[in-house]
Amino acid sequence: MNLEKLEKTVVSEYDIISNIKGLAIDMIHKAGSGHPGIVLGAAPILYTLFTRHLNISTNDPKWVNRDRFVMSAGHGSALLYATLFMAGHSLSIEDLKNFRRAGYRTPGHPEYGVTPGVDVSTGPLGQGIGTAVGMALGGKILEARYPVQPDHRFDRNTKVFDHYVYVLCGDGDLMEGISYEAASFAGTHALDHLIVLYDSNQISLDGETTHTFTEDVRERFRALGWYTDYVKNGESIAEIDKAIREAKKANQPALIEIRTVIGRGSLLEGTNVVHGKPLDREDIAQLKHSLGLSDVPFQYSDFLKQEMIKRVTDHSRKRYDEWAREYQELRAIDRYNIDFLFDHHPEVDLTKWHYEYPPDYKEELRKINADVMNLIPQLLPNFIGGSADLASSTKTYLKDGGDLSKNDYTGTNIWYGVREHAMGAIMNGLSLMKFKTFGSTFLSFADYVKPAMRMSALMGLDPTYIFTHDSVSIGSDGPTHQPVEQMAMIRAIPDMYLFRPADLNEVIGTWNYILKTHDHPNTIVLSKQEVPMLPVDPQQVLRGGYIVKPEAKQLHGIIIATGTEVHTALQLAKELKETEGLDLRIISMPCMELFLEQPAAYREQLLPKGVRTFVLEAGSSFGWHQFVYHQEYLLTIDMFGVSGTKDEALRHVHFQYDTLLERIKQKLK
Amino acid sequence: MNLEKLEKTVVSEYDIISNIKGLAIDMIHKAGSGHPGIVLGAAPILYTLFTRHLNISTNDPKWVNRDRFVMSAGHGSALLYATLFMAGHSLSIEDLKNFRRAGYRTPGHPEYGVTPGVDVSTGPLGQGIGTAVGMALGGKILEARYPVQPDHRFDRNTKVFDHYVYVLCGDGDLMEGISYEAASFAGTHALDHLIVLYDSNQISLDGETTHTFTEDVRERFRALGWYTDYVKNGESIAEIDKAIREAKKANQPALIEIRTVIGRGSLLEGTNVVHGKPLDREDIAQLKHSLGLSDVPFQYSDFLKQEMIKRVTDHSRKRYDEWAREYQELRAIDRYNIDFLFDHHPEVDLTKWHYEYPPDYKEELRKINADVMNLIPQLLPNFIGGSADLASSTKTYLKDGGDLSKNDYTGTNIWYGVREHAMGAIMNGLSLMKFKTFGSTFLSFADYVKPAMRMSALMGLDPTYIFTHDSVSIGSDGPTHQPVEQMAMIRAIPDMYLFRPADLNEVIGTWNYILKTHDHPNTIVLSKQEVPMLPVDPQQVLRGGYIVKPEAKQLHGIIIATGTEVHTALQLAKELKETEGLDLRIISMPCMELFLEQPAAYREQLLPKGVRTFVLEAGSSFGWHQFVYHQEYLLTIDMFGVSGTKDEALRHVHFQYDTLLERIKQKLK
Repeated sequence: MNLEKLEKTVVSEYDIISNIKGLAIDMIHKAGSGHPGIVLGAAPILYTLFTRHLNISTNDPKWVNRDRFVMSAGHGSALLYATLFMAGHSLSIEDLKNFRRAGYRTPGHPEYGVTPGVDVSTGPLGQGIGTAVGMALGGKILEARYPVQPDHRFDRNTKVFDHYVYVLCGDGDLMEGISYEAASFAGTHALDHLIVLYDSNQISLDGETTHTFTEDVRERFRALGWYTDYVKNGESIAEIDKAIREAKKANQPALIEIRTVIGRGSLLEGTNVVHGKPLDREDIAQLKHSLGLSDVPFQYSDFLKQEMIKRVTDHSRKRYDEWAREYQELRAIDRYNIDFLFDHHPEVDLTKWHYEYPPDYKEELRKINADVMNLIPQLLPNFIGGSADLASSTKTYLKDGGDLSKNDYTGTNIWYGVREHAMGAIMNGLSLMKFKTFGSTFLSFADYVKPAMRMSALMGLDPTYIFTHDSVSIGSDGPTHQPVEQMAMIRAIPDMYLFRPADLNEVIGTWNYILKTHDHPNTIVLSKQEVPMLPVDPQQVLRGGYIVKPEAKQLHGIIIATGTEVHTALQLAKELKETEGLDLRIISMPCMELFLEQPAAYREQLLPKGVRTFVLEAGSSFGWHQFVYHQEYLLTIDMFGVSGTKDEALRHVHFQYDTLLERIKQKLK
Repeated sequence: MNLEKLEKTVVSEYDIISNIKGLAIDMIHKAGSGHPGIVLGAAPILYTLFTRHLNISTNDPKWVNRDRFVMSAGHGSALLYATLFMAGHSLSIEDLKNFRRAGYRTPGHPEYGVTPGVDVSTGPLGQGIGTAVGMALGGKILEARYPVQPDHRFDRNTKVFDHYVYVLCGDGDLMEGISYEAASFAGTHALDHLIVLYDSNQISLDGETTHTFTEDVRERFRALGWYTDYVKNGESIAEIDKAIREAKKANQPALIEIRTVIGRGSLLEGTNVVHGKPLDREDIAQLKHSLGLSDVPFQYSDFLKQEMIKRVTDHSRKRYDEWAREYQELRAIDRYNIDFLFDHHPEVDLTKWHYEYPPDYKEELRKINADVMNLIPQLLPNFIGGSADLASSTKTYLKDGGDLSKNDYTGTNIWYGVREHAMGAIMNGLSLMKFKTFGSTFLSFADYVKPAMRMSALMGLDPTYIFTHDSVSIGSDGPTHQPVEQMAMIRAIPDMYLFRPADLNEVIGTWNYILKTHDHPNTIVLSKQEVPMLPVDPQQVLRGGYIVKPEAKQLHGIIIATGTEVHTALQLAKELKETEGLDLRIISMPCMELFLEQPAAYREQLLPKGVRTFVLEAGSSFGWHQFVYHQEYLLTIDMFGVSGTKDEALRHVHFQYDTLLERIKQKLK
């Protein structure tokens, strides 16, 4: 080894890191906001990862077998963008100059779909790690489903799918409960291609972590079944590199704690102030001086950039080229359809399913849903999902799929444990890996999943959240388990579609829509009550709302209902016709969002102005006022329930049949 | 020691446990739902705790210094009620016979305020432990605030406040992220009077924990700074007792893992089926036979009940009597007001605060709130709170209060770390300990807190959730940090009141209401934008909505606005008057819930029918339709924002000033 050459190399590598730091600091200064602390502390980590380990192709940033990088500490976006820029991803210097401005590829926190090289949106702490666990799980599934074939002509001892998922996280990520949930899951499932780089600077936004975070993090992760290591010097490329190399040898997920100094080189080095406040001019000047950088903002060395690109490409290219060949071979021998990895979706039409049921058919909606869901795996090889320890109650188990575990990653049923929040994030990770995935729990516990549901919607991913036990009518478990405001909470999330089907036909219509939809998440809400069949076409669901029972002659009023309440509405209409001669139209509205997307003419045809219109749903009135003229036409529930029989619980919230009948009668008289 | 007597004692103690099991199994059978698994597995744990350790008074169940018991595994309610019954709490056999029925003290999951001896509502897993951490923290604060005085005339070496918080939890509780967050907080804060009894039966609802939960729980807790121990035989009173005694000696929170067998003695022993399914007749018969119980449902031995009462009382009475005397002494020498512990609240009136500001006063709402909050500690000794590592941004720090830490529990500022969910649960625990408490983070992260907020509302507790950075207008941090649907989510929670004040006067009015309110939780939502003063009376807030600017002559239209948007509305009105001659009334509605509680006459006076009424709020339209005739009058935001300047972000969501002006103009022409 030529020592002179080695030295030159080393020097130039740290020059690249300095250049990255300088760019990121300038970005934050110009934007007037951002987080310099992590830039100055963690730049060597990212540099080492990108130049030594991360298998990517900047020409083909969507390469299916690329290593994923998740900036869980999303506030480190400036560092990430400066690194991506220097690594040769298609970001321009204009993008860097317009950090945190609309219309550029450099938003305040990393956003999936906006920036090449950004594999997931991050920002809300803990979500990144949770999602990374889902991506790592997806990787294991692909690895298991497409093993090296006996006639494999390559001499490498690797699988067709063998990518790693790397995460950079900080103290904040690790304090969040979701990261613990996901990490425990990752340990149980032995996700050995997950490597978390923990930027350990002992400072969070408000101050030193001695105030808040005194646990032994590595010991905790070992208890979770992780491999752990410690890098004393977070500035050392060699030490970081070695730790990652060692971590790859473990048969467990890995956490590498890397001791760094927040805001290193700034006058505010080592303080919480430098976490989230742009450096001032004086500080930037001295910092750049000590880093050997010019004073000119946004200056970078093209030589250094090319040096970095070379290093990023050199270690990745072989695998990329190899993979292209392997993939061709794979397609030839593939017994599954892997086109979904490339966003090619098979045509699925559940409405063609021939089903016949006796006229007196009655079944619980959750079980109806189970029947329909169990049709899907045959049509869609990438359909997988699980439950947060409630599959026995939500009935979302895929009967022929087997269990996914560290002993068999080909199973289609995921055991999330009692970890609703991590389930949501892992679903997002699986969606990013192009799986059509679902997760289930009780509607009341949607509260726990909400932050991840928002991330699904923000990223435009398509997981399906399934919530059963959907109203106060569950009775005996009491108000903690009786949802009231949860449907409003979910419907209020932009780009989230909530379905509350009323019968088998609507369940089919719901899934048929969901299986064709790939740009937003969906929620299915189901009761555990028995319902009969409605004489309706599943395709009606696509309109969001439709007439399930027209008025006979003269239209006295309309009831909009959803789910189980559609049957209540039909019964109310029947009785009001017989006893009072009232002629009602019943609208089933399985999906408010889809209905609101219909042409005005259709909506007005269904809900003509001036007709007394009721809404009947065993949940919060929030969101429903738009369909009625006055609060009193809302047959909804805006209070907590009570533990009791179904009737007792409904009585408590003024939602028993007699009360509903009386309320409608009063209004129509 | 008389061995014969000892043996008789031991035999009779296990008879008591058997009787408890029998009652609980009968309760579940009669109710037709419930969880027999934990009853049969964990009965000896509860029995040991109640008869050996739990300092309570069944005659005075609200005794301020009682030990708290938290049934975090809330599905074990039947076991708890049967134990409370046998321990002498005022539950009747009728209550047990009507388990899970409305109107009885035995709801499906334990409910605070319903059952004597139930210190907290539980059911959603993890919430119990989180709340217990808050209760244990509250205990440490009381202990530190009221130390043994130098002239203390008792020879005991204890403090005036020295109660323990005991928790029974299962695997599910420990899988939840919130329990990790809270446990890490408890370790950092050395909450040594918290003892968690972990019913370790290796089975959860869906099956064996080998599928889902393979971590080394005790090692994890040791990493968090906890004392841990293991009880091999969960049937052994002696072993459980010894472990608890040892745990009390530790200067750390304690986790005792107790190996039990789920559904012990049932034909389904050791399976997940017995977790949540009532035993059938045959199983009950063989179980009762082997336990030496009669076949008659709900039979219990009054002799055994008296035996248990005696044991519960014997070990508690001394401390209870002692404490009554100590408390008298404490009151005499008290320099703080401790009446709050007994629900006696001092009269607080912030509106009497004399404040004067220059006419051109402008300040950020979060800073205005900080000023007002900093007035409160002098008026209310039990006012404490903290932030999930965002105090620097939310500005909720109490300047003269110091930091609460394991070195000083008298501090009034709690460092929650990046643990929003645990913060909510700990707030609930502090509220149960009668502290008037608050917690702050960004509005966008209210998502993480939601499950705990619901528990606040369900229990009728009065913590205050403070959320800043309240709209898309924060700009550069991007859509992950820009709340949209969060206010709708919070307003939809029954019994939760959300305040979005517009200026200093409204902030004062908001806090004035909150400080007088003790039966429901409140939320304050604040922007970080600068606002001037409004010429309004703080007391107007009590009406929820009021006229902040009347029309001059002819009423052309009304704008309802909240928070920062009140100032936008005033500006819009001014410009529309000057340019178009439009005469608008502006309503500030800092609290929709309070407004809806006003008499109809007041509401109609403010919002007369037939007048074109707009709503202006930088958040979801959900909940607002009730005030407008048509969707188009909603000047709200139902889409995600974008990272950019404030103007760019508002433009993206069609909420910039010019667009609003144009939209109103079009409608009023």
